[in-house]
Amino acid sequence: MTASALAARFRGVRAASRALLRGLSPEDCAAQSMPDASPAKWHLAHTTWFFETFVLEAHEPGFAPSQPAYRALFNSYYQAIGAPFTRAKRGLLTRPSLDDVQHWRNDVDARIERLLDGADAAQFAAVAPLIELGLQHEQQHQELIVTDVKHLLAQNPLAPAWNLTLPTREAVAASTASAPADATAGRTAFAAARANSAAAPPPTERRWIRRPAGIVEIGHGGPGFAFDNEAPRHRVFLEAHALASHCVTAGEYLDFIRAGGYAQSQWWLAEGWDWIRREAIAHPLYWIAPGADAATAADGWREFTLAGTRPLDGAAPVCHLSGYEADAYARWTGARLPTEAEWEAAATAQPDAFADLAGAVWQWTASGYSPYPGFRPDAGAVGEYNGKFMVNQYVLRGGSIATPPGHARPTYRNFFPASARWQFTGLRLARD
Amino acid sequence: MTASALAARFRGVRAASRALLRGLSPEDCAAQSMPDASPAKWHLAHTTWFFETFVLEAHEPGFAPSQPAYRALFNSYYQAIGAPFTRAKRGLLTRPSLDDVQHWRNDVDARIERLLDGADAAQFAAVAPLIELGLQHEQQHQELIVTDVKHLLAQNPLAPAWNLTLPTREAVAASTASAPADATAGRTAFAAARANSAAAPPPTERRWIRRPAGIVEIGHGGPGFAFDNEAPRHRVFLEAHALASHCVTAGEYLDFIRAGGYAQSQWWLAEGWDWIRREAIAHPLYWIAPGADAATAADGWREFTLAGTRPLDGAAPVCHLSGYEADAYARWTGARLPTEAEWEAAATAQPDAFADLAGAVWQWTASGYSPYPGFRPDAGAVGEYNGKFMVNQYVLRGGSIATPPGHARPTYRNFFPASARWQFTGLRLARD
Amino acid sequence: MTASALAARFRGVRAASRALLRGLSPEDCAAQSMPDASPAKWHLAHTTWFFETFVLEAHEPGFAPSQPAYRALFNSYYQAIGAPFTRAKRGLLTRPSLDDVQHWRNDVDARIERLLDGADAAQFAAVAPLIELGLQHEQQHQELIVTDVKHLLAQNPLAPAWNLTLPTREAVAASTASAPADATAGRTAFAAARANSAAAPPPTERRWIRRPAGIVEIGHGGPGFAFDNEAPRHRVFLEAHALASHCVTAGEYLDFIRAGGYAQSQWWLAEGWDWIRREAIAHPLYWIAPGADAATAADGWREFTLAGTRPLDGAAPVCHLSGYEADAYARWTGARLPTEAEWEAAATAQPDAFADLAGAVWQWTASGYSPYPGFRPDAGAVGEYNGKFMVNQYVLRGGSIATPPGHARPTYRNFFPASARWQFTGLRLARD
Amino acid sequence: MTASALAARFRGVRAASRALLRGLSPEDCAAQSMPDASPAKWHLAHTTWFFETFVLEAHEPGFAPSQPAYRALFNSYYQAIGAPFTRAKRGLLTRPSLDDVQHWRNDVDARIERLLDGADAAQFAAVAPLIELGLQHEQQHQELIVTDVKHLLAQNPLAPAWNLTLPTREAVAASTASAPADATAGRTAFAAARANSAAAPPPTERRWIRRPAGIVEIGHGGPGFAFDNEAPRHRVFLEAHALASHCVTAGEYLDFIRAGGYAQSQWWLAEGWDWIRREAIAHPLYWIAPGADAATAADGWREFTLAGTRPLDGAAPVCHLSGYEADAYARWTGARLPTEAEWEAAATAQPDAFADLAGAVWQWTASGYSPYPGFRPDAGAVGEYNGKFMVNQYVLRGGSIATPPGHARPTYRNFFPASARWQFTGLRLARD
Repeated sequence: MTASALAARFRGVRAASRALLRGLSPEDCAAQSMPDASPAKWHLAHTTWFFETFVLEAHEPGFAPSQPAYRALFNSYYQAIGAPFTRAKRGLLTRPSLDDVQHWRNDVDARIERLLDGADAAQFAAVAPLIELGLQHEQQHQELIVTDVKHLLAQNPLAPAWNLTLPTREAVAASTASAPADATAGRTAFAAARANSAAAPPPTERRWIRRPAGIVEIGHGGPGFAFDNEAPRHRVFLEAHALASHCVTAGEYLDFIRAGGYAQSQWWLAEGWDWIRREAIAHPLYWIAPGADAATAADGWREFTLAGTRPLDGAAPVCHLSGYEADAYARWTGARLPTEAEWEAAATAQPDAFADLAGAVWQWTASGYSPYPGFRPDAGAVGEYNGKFMVNQYVLRGGSIATPPGHARPTYRNFFPASARWQFTGLRLARD
Repeated sequence: MTASALAARFRGVRAASRALLRGLSPEDCAAQSMPDASPAKWHLAHTTWFFETFVLEAHEPGFAPSQPAYRALFNSYYQAIGAPFTRAKRGLLTRPSLDDVQHWRNDVDARIERLLDGADAAQFAAVAPLIELGLQHEQQHQELIVTDVKHLLAQNPLAPAWNLTLPTREAVAASTASAPADATAGRTAFAAARANSAAAPPPTERRWIRRPAGIVEIGHGGPGFAFDNEAPRHRVFLEAHALASHCVTAGEYLDFIRAGGYAQSQWWLAEGWDWIRREAIAHPLYWIAPGADAATAADGWREFTLAGTRPLDGAAPVCHLSGYEADAYARWTGARLPTEAEWEAAATAQPDAFADLAGAVWQWTASGYSPYPGFRPDAGAVGEYNGKFMVNQYVLRGGSIATPPGHARPTYRNFFPASARWQFTGLRLARD
Repeated sequence: MTASALAARFRGVRAASRALLRGLSPEDCAAQSMPDASPAKWHLAHTTWFFETFVLEAHEPGFAPSQPAYRALFNSYYQAIGAPFTRAKRGLLTRPSLDDVQHWRNDVDARIERLLDGADAAQFAAVAPLIELGLQHEQQHQELIVTDVKHLLAQNPLAPAWNLTLPTREAVAASTASAPADATAGRTAFAAARANSAAAPPPTERRWIRRPAGIVEIGHGGPGFAFDNEAPRHRVFLEAHALASHCVTAGEYLDFIRAGGYAQSQWWLAEGWDWIRREAIAHPLYWIAPGADAATAADGWREFTLAGTRPLDGAAPVCHLSGYEADAYARWTGARLPTEAEWEAAATAQPDAFADLAGAVWQWTASGYSPYPGFRPDAGAVGEYNGKFMVNQYVLRGGSIATPPGHARPTYRNFFPASARWQFTGLRLARD
Repeated sequence: MTASALAARFRGVRAASRALLRGLSPEDCAAQSMPDASPAKWHLAHTTWFFETFVLEAHEPGFAPSQPAYRALFNSYYQAIGAPFTRAKRGLLTRPSLDDVQHWRNDVDARIERLLDGADAAQFAAVAPLIELGLQHEQQHQELIVTDVKHLLAQNPLAPAWNLTLPTREAVAASTASAPADATAGRTAFAAARANSAAAPPPTERRWIRRPAGIVEIGHGGPGFAFDNEAPRHRVFLEAHALASHCVTAGEYLDFIRAGGYAQSQWWLAEGWDWIRREAIAHPLYWIAPGADAATAADGWREFTLAGTRPLDGAAPVCHLSGYEADAYARWTGARLPTEAEWEAAATAQPDAFADLAGAVWQWTASGYSPYPGFRPDAGAVGEYNGKFMVNQYVLRGGSIATPPGHARPTYRNFFPASARWQFTGLRLARD
């Protein structure tokens, strides 16, 4: 990629972050609904901090931070950079204002572009990977802006509608992996197959796709971008198994609820059972049971969406599930969650056999988030990006409607604790 | 008071709330720094809710709520009105916006004025006390806006300065009790004496004012406004005692710190001792110890104020003390906190003998917040205003620099839990 | 009192502690059911610690602690003695064993008796008050052994019966204040009147006893023993009021439950309302609602007692109430809780007019636990006994069936937080 | 195995549980030091409950529970059997007494023996696997008795010594897998190799044992006993790696502490870093830093052991480590934790190359506790034994000095949360 192509991509990704904020007020962008979520303004600032700290500070001639106090304020968790501001208090940072943050973004953007413009080949070779990492990082935060603002608005009894237009499942799926050129056959096929997703059989015709026993290779090994946690490419032995052609739908999940699944301990991991009872959980996040309020009494199940509250769409992939719920549902049907190796091997080998591999919901796997054999974190503070979270989290594969087009890959490892529900998370079944 | 005079007073108090927000952004007005504090926007909305619920709903012909959803959203704690929105989540109400709330205020203001304008004598007699109650209520929230926003800004490492000009101690003291006419001699004298406060001897000449044993009358009994918890006027027997002419200063309190007071259990109530150790408290809220950061290393003690961080003012009354700290300091000096009856009797009988009775800091007393003999809450939902909080709180007397001029009275009973520190709270010593 | 009389009294009180443990196993004596309760073994050890620390250490020639490690282990909360062992972990002290503790008790007992035996007049004058304080202290812990073991056994689904015989209400009431000679007329009359308690009209004939306005004297001023918190005797002005002749009965309280009192916010202090909802409280502690288990389905209300589970005794004074519940019940009837001054003045002036002043249940008052005017704690570490708890607790008056005969007095100030329910606590109504 | 051989084995295992209690008082056996630990008496009762519920109830002619209330009281977590008694309150079950529990044990033992004695071949075939499961279960609880009582005694400032003699590391290792006959070559070799453990090179000569890439088979597939979570035997592909010949010693771990490892975030998983700071952890559980108390001031590091407090044994395998600490130490040395497949393959293939495979400490692995491909829980309520805990726990391999001889196997999967420290847990290093 040339410097000017990278600059154009830089402008595009940065503009996409700002575009997400249309229809939101400064207050909407400043509030924090829970410690796990962050204000949209914080996401804008933190992604800017990433470029200033990891690109400009190391490579800009005569670098001086434009706002020294921001270095701690918008550090997320990089201990090597210094003590970050308390995560749970991000919603109290009413200063700097959204305008102030936007001015800082503009300043950093201009400096990044100047850096690219003036870079010779050696300099470009040094900064380009960091800028690409910053853009991939920013795209991750774009998805978090969607999930975090949705969670915030859902706390409001006014159930406000956010006038945000996300790409359709088909559009996101089609563009997946279209970003940097990549010679890996699997990845290209995956991307192409996503374009056929709309033509896949409807969920009512879900089929089991058999997958043979044998050694597969998974993980990132090609020339394109990947996070450090996707490497190295390595061999895994899989016993024979089968994967479902489609994700589980909301309507199918509703059958589990109606059959009393949340009141029957036998489907649940012990920790999940304790969790649903302690938290009084009886359905996926954002679902509203009939009779829960006046509006739902006559209407059956409803759900809070980016467009406000509306009747539950039973045909769509079930979403906003915790890992506990995904696991319990799978057990109820006599199936199980796939491992990440099963998922990746199938998605790479037979992308056209599966619907909703990407573009719909992230799919919980049975795989704890652990290092691949031979894993090496990136050098320096950037090495804190992924590896230090490899405990008590579970891998999700695929990509959701909120994943920026082109961001996900077949080797992509998303990860969250089993109790997380505010992401766009669902499941695909597997069986031995 | 005539209807037009009341309307003018109404406009003045309502305008004073808005005036407090100068220099604050919409984000500053929307965030909530802790469950005990509320966003400024919420205060604006809740005081409006009070007028709509307790005045318009009962007395406006053809009443219909302009925003039905606000009835629950901005209810603070009146169970008789319905389930209020969760207190700890007020900072998540990014909708309605500050503008929306201001439009609602304008609508309610216009309707209140129309109601006053069209009221005959009987109607005026019915609504005037409720409007006066609403105005007194709004003035209480004006002080809370100051304390809550100060607490919010203090969480921000940028230590932003709020360009808010409060009246001087002398000005607040001078105007105390100047609002509705009041025939009670004590109250008038109290108000007059406050004007002399500036002429009182400086704190370095603090004297003990002896007060004899005998029966005193305390509580509200005259024609002016008072909250239900100030009535009825009743007799109390006081043994002989003495009260300090001045409040304890920050400099005097610093002596307690330097003498190791926070490390010596003998000065502390057991609950206070547990509290300072559990919360790692070693000085009043907003104080910054020398060496705590770069700025204070060379400067000695500093404090966060409405004007940002600055050197500690040792001559000012010590402020932002919990009741535990006030009690420990008093014990360290060999004195004690006064009871509320001692305070009120002295302030009424000898107002010119004491400095800073009002206009500086609220003064912790040793009196638990309990009903006076014969106490009767107001009828209806308004009766939840005060009485139901009469447990595990302590009475504070006087009034602070953030108390709106004319709001406090010698009979005024402010109350907070012993652990509260974010109000403008200090102490005056007493001894047997 | 002579040395030999005091020695006899010492032997009697110490033996009474041991007698309480009949029918309990070593495990029963070692477990701790909640942080507020302590194991019976700990009570035996702590009361021994009190004598060793405050009597022997100061007055025994050539004193050396028999078990140096016990000094921290069985210190309750005396900071001046050193850091006590963590209160919530007392149930983990399986060593020393109950036998070891009993041997230590025997050793300390023998040394106390030797000290008394060898004391000249001056020495006796120095140690006698400390020994008397230790005995009063031990009697307080005797009541705690009963309440703490009852709480422990109540946690056990086997609902074990404790073969403990407590004196009847009449016997305890009759002997109240019979201990050290006391010239105070009120106290003597109080004691005498208690003997008539059994002849008082039954609860169904409860009457209001009118009490006039005026100055009364309360507090301890005579020669007999009293805790420091009962002094000094001082004057209080009381407005006219009335007190109920009897305590509220369980049957009367059941009417409040059946009328829906636990579901109606208007009767409750805000803090109490939050508390019953958070803790899912719907009746007094140890009551078992009909249908709560198989045994109660056919039987109506039952209660866990020292004799196991049995049908609720509706004629007995209601017991195991929190202060919140006592206050809510009083408000439901249109009455209120008495102040401690009202209670003491009435109990002293008209002891024969009231039933169950002592010997049945401790009676919640509306009075926060505060120092009397002129209060001075005892000198030295013993001064931590009472004064440092004077915040966020409420005074209870009277005495329960578990109070050792002769221990209570009309001036006695018991105190607990408003949420405490495991003591034998009920209420007597008052009204203006 | 014949019925009489099984009966003999039954008697032996049951007697071993009782033997553990020598030197403990009834109080020692009844207390519970934390929710994760259980009283020794509870372990005795629960293992008895297991035989009564899963063997006698299904197979004893005319079965009637000897103590119906015990069915809920001593159920650990089997939801299918009914609601268990609250885990955190097991220490409050002072009734039944230790004697009562022992009588119940004797009764159940006699009935089990009668059942075996009277069983025909078909009946024996049905009950023998359940009895064997009950014995393996009891052996697990034998190890928990040791760890739980050690934790309890450690809370006591008296640091009592428990006169418990455990087998030496060599003896436990030698007898590992010696129990039921087993044709699996690996297992036999493992057992034999353990006998050579004492002859292994001392820790100072620790070597890296290289292991080649390739497919290995792990899991239980032979005829002997194994828990359901060890099956089925299946293939795993391992990349080339190396394992350390010895476990990490306490002395080596001390180097990490002295190098400041607990103050350097770069070695820690983010969750571990938060954990050590929140819990103020600076060394393994039961270690006592120099200067922490009078006894250690002059002595250097000490540790609390089953024999009381004594100088730290630097040559022994480091023990009482959390998974976080094991992981951090490994990273500090540039190595990593092994996976469970690496561990099992090496232990099976080259048992004589490694010291302390069993008999010293359980060894943390990097493997989340997940089902093997094709895992099927046992049928019925017994199926809750293992599978429902397969989330947020990590597998440990090997066996400790407290593991009953003959209980562990190369395929054995122990599992605990990463924060658990009170088990006998250490680590063996691996590297790519």
